[in-house]
Amino acid sequence: VPTFKLTIAYDGTAYLGWQRQTTGVTIQGLVEEAMARVTGADATVIGAGRTDAGVHALGQVASVAVETRLDAGEMRRALNAHLPRDVRVLEAETAPAGFHARYAARRKTYAYHLSTAPVVSPFERSYVWHHPGPLGRDAMRRALAALEGTHDFAAFQAAGSHPVETVRTLMRAALEPVGSWAVWAGAPASEASLLRLTFVADGFLRHMVRAIVGTVVEVGRDRLDAGEIAGILAGRDRRRAGPTAPAQGLCLVRVDYDENLE
Amino acid sequence: VPTFKLTIAYDGTAYLGWQRQTTGVTIQGLVEEAMARVTGADATVIGAGRTDAGVHALGQVASVAVETRLDAGEMRRALNAHLPRDVRVLEAETAPAGFHARYAARRKTYAYHLSTAPVVSPFERSYVWHHPGPLGRDAMRRALAALEGTHDFAAFQAAGSHPVETVRTLMRAALEPVGSWAVWAGAPASEASLLRLTFVADGFLRHMVRAIVGTVVEVGRDRLDAGEIAGILAGRDRRRAGPTAPAQGLCLVRVDYDENLE
Repeated sequence: VPTFKLTIAYDGTAYLGWQRQTTGVTIQGLVEEAMARVTGADATVIGAGRTDAGVHALGQVASVAVETRLDAGEMRRALNAHLPRDVRVLEAETAPAGFHARYAARRKTYAYHLSTAPVVSPFERSYVWHHPGPLGRDAMRRALAALEGTHDFAAFQAAGSHPVETVRTLMRAALEPVGSWAVWAGAPASEASLLRLTFVADGFLRHMVRAIVGTVVEVGRDRLDAGEIAGILAGRDRRRAGPTAPAQGLCLVRVDYDENLE
Repeated sequence: VPTFKLTIAYDGTAYLGWQRQTTGVTIQGLVEEAMARVTGADATVIGAGRTDAGVHALGQVASVAVETRLDAGEMRRALNAHLPRDVRVLEAETAPAGFHARYAARRKTYAYHLSTAPVVSPFERSYVWHHPGPLGRDAMRRALAALEGTHDFAAFQAAGSHPVETVRTLMRAALEPVGSWAVWAGAPASEASLLRLTFVADGFLRHMVRAIVGTVVEVGRDRLDAGEIAGILAGRDRRRAGPTAPAQGLCLVRVDYDENLE
């Protein structure tokens, strides 16, 4: 049975997230249905990141072992023919037998987009958290720096989550102003003021990025001091961190495996 | 009666274009309805560019003279409160009495986005023409260069259009590869290969940009030689130019007035 590695992009706006549910449409469900139509066989498609409802992906990676005579390029085209236009298989590759997109993932990159402009561009409306008004970027950067490294992130996981192991290594937590789609196309500068927070880690707890963003924005608003981050981490208490930022600003950008890392 | 200059962005996907129609929803219709709700008065909102159905805008400019006690900032907020999220007033300014967004426009900039990638990203699906496969960029650039300058553009207007004056000055017609939203956010490079064609002119005939893009793509596909462009212009015959490119790749980026030009 051949194994495939799929790189998938999706606009999560209309979906209940990656993971198959008994009610409601999910990305995993759509890809598995498309796979069944293409191959005639039922197969489980395993995603590297179990993105929540409304979260987007530019480079989700999934693995699937399925009986088929299609090669990888044919698989990509056939799946896309059975998927809605807001879910696209960007790439299909054959993978070694036993390849598991989640267990084998070494590093994931998430981006969170925040618009501080008075008005959100129609072209970004589904992909940013609109938080108008100034934010203290230097303080936010200090807060992000305090989160980098290997820490117990229990204070930044979804309330009610109880994974056995809450230690993760956050290799990068950065903030940068970016030109919006609009500025990028040469529009008037009034469309500026998009911020991107980028997070690279060996793994993320449920809601971890959104809890970090909610907390870092509290720092940017001067409601919390960057110096308190270390204490919040040490306290392991979700209630001491900030609110969970909205799902729609979050995007799974890429997943790296041994072969992508040096 | 105060006059306002509005800068408006819209995702044109769901609309019949700028201009008010007896049937169907248009941007002008939406802005005029919002204006009536906000001020209690009926007023005509004049757009600088009468974009077609499905065409987008990052910086449409509109003028309106309306009795109101609201200042420009209040006007912007009140209009946005009555507009759908895919239509946004980015800026409202007071303008001199008699300001007419169309007649006073000195220069307009349109962008056309073309994706040559095998798969179109979900994030660009409504904003590009998907034309998979290689295009000869150098030949396309020669064709664009042949169009720059002051010419009679009758060969590149909508079939059946008969304006009195078809001479326009195309100050810039350029092609550049651009990173997609995806590349821009750090996604895998498989998402590259977006091309942007930018057009700056003192005015555009109906369908002019789309006819030019359709023709230039024929050149990129080697079905037409860049050397034939001059003859097509001189022939003034729409049938000799290429097909009209799809509306969804087109975007009105900005409109310049005397005060923006040196």
